[in-house]
Amino acid sequence: MSQISTQSNLSTLLDRGVVEIFPNSETDNLANRIQNLIQNGDRPLRIKLGIDPTRPDLHLGHTVALRKLRQFQDAGHKAILIIGDFTAQIGDPTGRSEARPRLTPEEVAYNAETYLEQAKKIIDFSSDRFELRRNGEWLNQLDLQQIITLQASMTVGQMLAKEGFSDRYEKGNPIYLHEFLYPLLQGYDSVAIDSDVELGGTDQKFNILVGRDLQLKDKHRQGKPAQFGMLLPLLVGLDGVQKMSKSVGNYVGLTDEPLSMYSKLEKVPDALVDQYFELLTDIDLASLPENPREKQKQLARVIVSQYHSPEIALQAQQDAEQIVIAGNTKDLGDIPEFNLAEINFPAPLHYLVKASGLCKSNSEAQSQIKNGAVKLDGEKLSDRTFANANELTGKVLQVGKKKFLRLVSE
Amino acid sequence: MSQISTQSNLSTLLDRGVVEIFPNSETDNLANRIQNLIQNGDRPLRIKLGIDPTRPDLHLGHTVALRKLRQFQDAGHKAILIIGDFTAQIGDPTGRSEARPRLTPEEVAYNAETYLEQAKKIIDFSSDRFELRRNGEWLNQLDLQQIITLQASMTVGQMLAKEGFSDRYEKGNPIYLHEFLYPLLQGYDSVAIDSDVELGGTDQKFNILVGRDLQLKDKHRQGKPAQFGMLLPLLVGLDGVQKMSKSVGNYVGLTDEPLSMYSKLEKVPDALVDQYFELLTDIDLASLPENPREKQKQLARVIVSQYHSPEIALQAQQDAEQIVIAGNTKDLGDIPEFNLAEINFPAPLHYLVKASGLCKSNSEAQSQIKNGAVKLDGEKLSDRTFANANELTGKVLQVGKKKFLRLVSE
Repeated sequence: MSQISTQSNLSTLLDRGVVEIFPNSETDNLANRIQNLIQNGDRPLRIKLGIDPTRPDLHLGHTVALRKLRQFQDAGHKAILIIGDFTAQIGDPTGRSEARPRLTPEEVAYNAETYLEQAKKIIDFSSDRFELRRNGEWLNQLDLQQIITLQASMTVGQMLAKEGFSDRYEKGNPIYLHEFLYPLLQGYDSVAIDSDVELGGTDQKFNILVGRDLQLKDKHRQGKPAQFGMLLPLLVGLDGVQKMSKSVGNYVGLTDEPLSMYSKLEKVPDALVDQYFELLTDIDLASLPENPREKQKQLARVIVSQYHSPEIALQAQQDAEQIVIAGNTKDLGDIPEFNLAEINFPAPLHYLVKASGLCKSNSEAQSQIKNGAVKLDGEKLSDRTFANANELTGKVLQVGKKKFLRLVSE
Repeated sequence: MSQISTQSNLSTLLDRGVVEIFPNSETDNLANRIQNLIQNGDRPLRIKLGIDPTRPDLHLGHTVALRKLRQFQDAGHKAILIIGDFTAQIGDPTGRSEARPRLTPEEVAYNAETYLEQAKKIIDFSSDRFELRRNGEWLNQLDLQQIITLQASMTVGQMLAKEGFSDRYEKGNPIYLHEFLYPLLQGYDSVAIDSDVELGGTDQKFNILVGRDLQLKDKHRQGKPAQFGMLLPLLVGLDGVQKMSKSVGNYVGLTDEPLSMYSKLEKVPDALVDQYFELLTDIDLASLPENPREKQKQLARVIVSQYHSPEIALQAQQDAEQIVIAGNTKDLGDIPEFNLAEINFPAPLHYLVKASGLCKSNSEAQSQIKNGAVKLDGEKLSDRTFANANELTGKVLQVGKKKFLRLVSE
């Protein structure tokens, strides 16, 4: 059996980037529970993190909880990653102003695959301290009797008191009955996998409490204590205002190209840099440079290192600096944007270069490409056809040393 | 194939004791649908009546819809009696100020058996125009996906607008989430049995509309018209005020002894007599006697005839009259009551006679019994032990010709 965390990393585990742990009374708290485990040589804790694959890509916002899960893994506990293949078909109504469109099983399966591919960058899948589960495994087995028992455990009033639901109800926006199932089903996951701790963003408190409650009501647990909830911050996006989100566009994706990732991160608003270090890296916060510009650069390099490699991160930094120098006084943040929505895909590169205004004609664009003067995020491109905007969005398109555009999709 | 109703009984079918039929537009109405069936030689209609066996006994209030179902049967249509063995475990929240206690499958099975035994007195079970179904048959097969689809068809707002729910929500009385399932599940019965008409009390309009709605949304129906709803009055009980109900105590049970049934019915408040004739008998309403006392007696005799026999009804009438004469000026309605809750069962008859005060001592009671002077609803009793109050409740216990008590359980 793996060794349970020692005192030294216990404080990182329970404090770094943690907003709240509940329950947290003098007698009933997570530190005690873990201390007892160490003293008694008892089994490691089962740490639950549920992810609904409602979109195909992970961004840094998702990594906050995944990284905490990894910390538990490193401390000797068991990471239970639940792919909400079933619940994703309903969609967590938390924080939504309207019902989510229901996803098909095919969409969910595709998303889950890409999610896992990316989660592997953070969680150690090969460890015996890892368990991957899909909640369809037990939710598809529930019969109507069991669902009735689940539903009978909560009242309409409790559900409508949940943030989000209450707003929608008061505004007269429809709440469909199946949305009330979501908290119960994801809560039932805690019963099914017998979790000791559930991780989640601060917006998940209600859902995690439902899981706790359902565990307490479960006859088979026979008095075993219910799970703790550990709430983690919702990462603010690059705009410094809203929660990081692909639909808002203020995100850094885990599959972003190194230069794109670097150039986004070296512009993280000063007010967020410390929190990004705390939540997204292992760097000792006492060791950070004082100069704000240096801090941003270090952040960008550390994170690019994590998801690519230190060498690639260094290269990205050099490329970014070269672009800045080439662009003279222009900071990357100031370079103009070109909206890819103006392009009819599929589109050849020379057409894109001309349409964006970087060249005046198709023939000029074609000869610049031939000369190797056209680059995307610093890499030379030959003329080819792009099927859609996916490969281009967020990158810097460059002709020669002085003309730059950031390609955006809006 | 059985012959579909002719014009002459169509008016009885659609008018007698019917509060509302919906939809009822010029182009879309039940009379047209039936006329078309007759003209086209098409299949008979499938008439749904769902009964939740939440209590073991039927009373006259239940027979209103059962009788209408029989009328459809007699008119050539197919009576589909659904025993809500599944839904009874939830309980229809309609008109309830709080959640029903959930019944066990055993309780439901027992109740269903006695229900059916009694329903046979009204519905022709042996006819090929009869289909008996239990909704556990299809509801137990529903998986979570299907339940989500059902729930996604309605909003919390629509559900809370339902009479009963809205009151409870506003008063802060808990509504448990599973109660919202009830209308959907009983509505799904209409999909499962493919009903053309659903019968129900006026309080069932919401539930019947849900059934209509779910049929319309069901892909497999391919544009087939949805069921009509036929709403029937809720029978007012013997108190002349509240809906007939066993728990209120204002009821006539189908298994009541003839004398008990007769003596209750001959006291039906004048204001209700006509409606009782309309809903509970086939008597031509134009033929009723004018004298109110005669009317009551005829009502009592007709109904006792229906559930026992004309001979027994006549006997019950004579017995009742004898008791009245014996009791001098006393109407049966005025005889004092004795509450069986005061008796510790099992109890021997002589103890009951003494404890009720009809005799002054056990020995007097025993000798009266030996002399054949002790009667229950006019029938002589020998001394024996009663296991519980069931056989006694509602009956008249008599010693000699002048001492009477009505035995009640409260």
